[in-house]
Amino acid sequence: MASAREAATPVFDTLVVVGPGLIGSSVLRRAQQKGTLARQLIAVDVSPEARARVEELGIADRVMADAAEAAALADCVMLCVPVGAMGPVAEKVLPVMRPGSILTEVGSTKVSVIEAITPFLRPDVAYVPAHPMAGTEYSGPDAGFATLFEDRWCLLTPLDGTPPEALSAIRTLWERCGARLREMTPAHHDRVCAIVSHLPHLLAFTICGTADDLADETRSEVLDFAASGFRDFTRIAASDPVMWRDVFLSNREALLEMLARFMEDAQAMARAIRWGDEDYIVDRIQRGRAIRKSLIENRQA
Amino acid sequence: MASAREAATPVFDTLVVVGPGLIGSSVLRRAQQKGTLARQLIAVDVSPEARARVEELGIADRVMADAAEAAALADCVMLCVPVGAMGPVAEKVLPVMRPGSILTEVGSTKVSVIEAITPFLRPDVAYVPAHPMAGTEYSGPDAGFATLFEDRWCLLTPLDGTPPEALSAIRTLWERCGARLREMTPAHHDRVCAIVSHLPHLLAFTICGTADDLADETRSEVLDFAASGFRDFTRIAASDPVMWRDVFLSNREALLEMLARFMEDAQAMARAIRWGDEDYIVDRIQRGRAIRKSLIENRQA
Repeated sequence: MASAREAATPVFDTLVVVGPGLIGSSVLRRAQQKGTLARQLIAVDVSPEARARVEELGIADRVMADAAEAAALADCVMLCVPVGAMGPVAEKVLPVMRPGSILTEVGSTKVSVIEAITPFLRPDVAYVPAHPMAGTEYSGPDAGFATLFEDRWCLLTPLDGTPPEALSAIRTLWERCGARLREMTPAHHDRVCAIVSHLPHLLAFTICGTADDLADETRSEVLDFAASGFRDFTRIAASDPVMWRDVFLSNREALLEMLARFMEDAQAMARAIRWGDEDYIVDRIQRGRAIRKSLIENRQA
Repeated sequence: MASAREAATPVFDTLVVVGPGLIGSSVLRRAQQKGTLARQLIAVDVSPEARARVEELGIADRVMADAAEAAALADCVMLCVPVGAMGPVAEKVLPVMRPGSILTEVGSTKVSVIEAITPFLRPDVAYVPAHPMAGTEYSGPDAGFATLFEDRWCLLTPLDGTPPEALSAIRTLWERCGARLREMTPAHHDRVCAIVSHLPHLLAFTICGTADDLADETRSEVLDFAASGFRDFTRIAASDPVMWRDVFLSNREALLEMLARFMEDAQAMARAIRWGDEDYIVDRIQRGRAIRKSLIENRQA
């Protein structure tokens, strides 16, 4: 842990947040509130509306339209754009970044984001891939809040060449956001996120679509009677479409593998129901209960 | 609506609740609290532990082991046993029920429960199938509470031969439990419940099982990082295994149809992800958001 004196020293001089949406604007709010993340905060967004909103919210010292122009001023550039935009934005900012500065990003998938960024890396700019596992179903600069990361996990997937000082700086930044840290390989990260997050979202979107395709009468009753279980699936189905499209495509391999496993299991359950295999059905339900119990014991439920 | 004077008259003289679990014990608590459901409350359970617990809780005037012995004393017998037990219990109680009395039940599926009970029906005992759509992931006499049914739906699926006075009495009983009422055919009921309740439960049990089958390292991380979506699926996965086994088997046809539709949709999503069909993915996600929005507007979310 940092001492009181160290904690008072900002991690960075100038932090540039590209994409002040839910995650990015939460980092800005936290940085502004604590004063120990960076001395100067610059927000970058291609959208004039988003820039205007960030100005109104007053959560950055400067708001700029051009990522490269901002990146040239920074000792840390944090990309908070949808995972599909990480490569193109990295291509823009990396050539102008200062020697010794750090590039980091918050993508929900790691293997493909690292692949997209790697071609543009420079030996004198450190790259630290990170994934703060926090979010709500809302998006945009107004959706953020300073406590979003408190007691939430931030997964770090450092590469072989990631300099320890750069990793340490990004660790400190997320610790000061209140996050708990864990390091793992990018591939393992993607498998874990496929099962804990991407597959549940895919299933939630899918069941909403299945319900939407039903005859009108039944569909209206789905809305009336949603409290019986369906509703629990819809909270996460309210998330941002472009972000999730990018996540699904970006974590294609791991997600399709988890979905395939799930489909096999669902088919096996269907077969057990069709043929009245009571033991199989009870066994699968009991596993669900056991996992729920573990979550409650882990205080994750 | 009943006038103040009518509201003060109990609907029944003696109400027998067979199976004082979550639903049954909630009816007993409500009946005891309001005094307008029945003058006398009898709870029946085959389990000595459940009987002892109901005695300790003091939520019935009498607690009995034998359903037939109790049914002979009642003007209304309400079966609150798992759907697979409805037929056998009906077979026991119907021969001894008083002429003019009412048999009702609270099964989560209707077509197969009605089929199971029908062979034992008598012309002088009315049968009113009902389904209070309320519940928690807990079960047993301790899990119930008097307000469980408030503002929740109770679906009634009267048959061609159901006498209007009997239907009206059961409607009043559930209204006095605080429920909102809707009537529909048994087959339509089963389709609606398959999509709003049974399929979400099946998917929740299945994803928990899929996660449980992963390598140890990943499984432990599923528990650590569950907040990212997986957790929302586990609340309903904590439900009672025997009850759900019975529900799945009892609503086999409608559930397998909804599951088949869902699997087709999930396969189509998998294909879109594999081949990068961005428009398809975004369209499906947007449908999910639209349904969530409707739920919020319906105040069901």
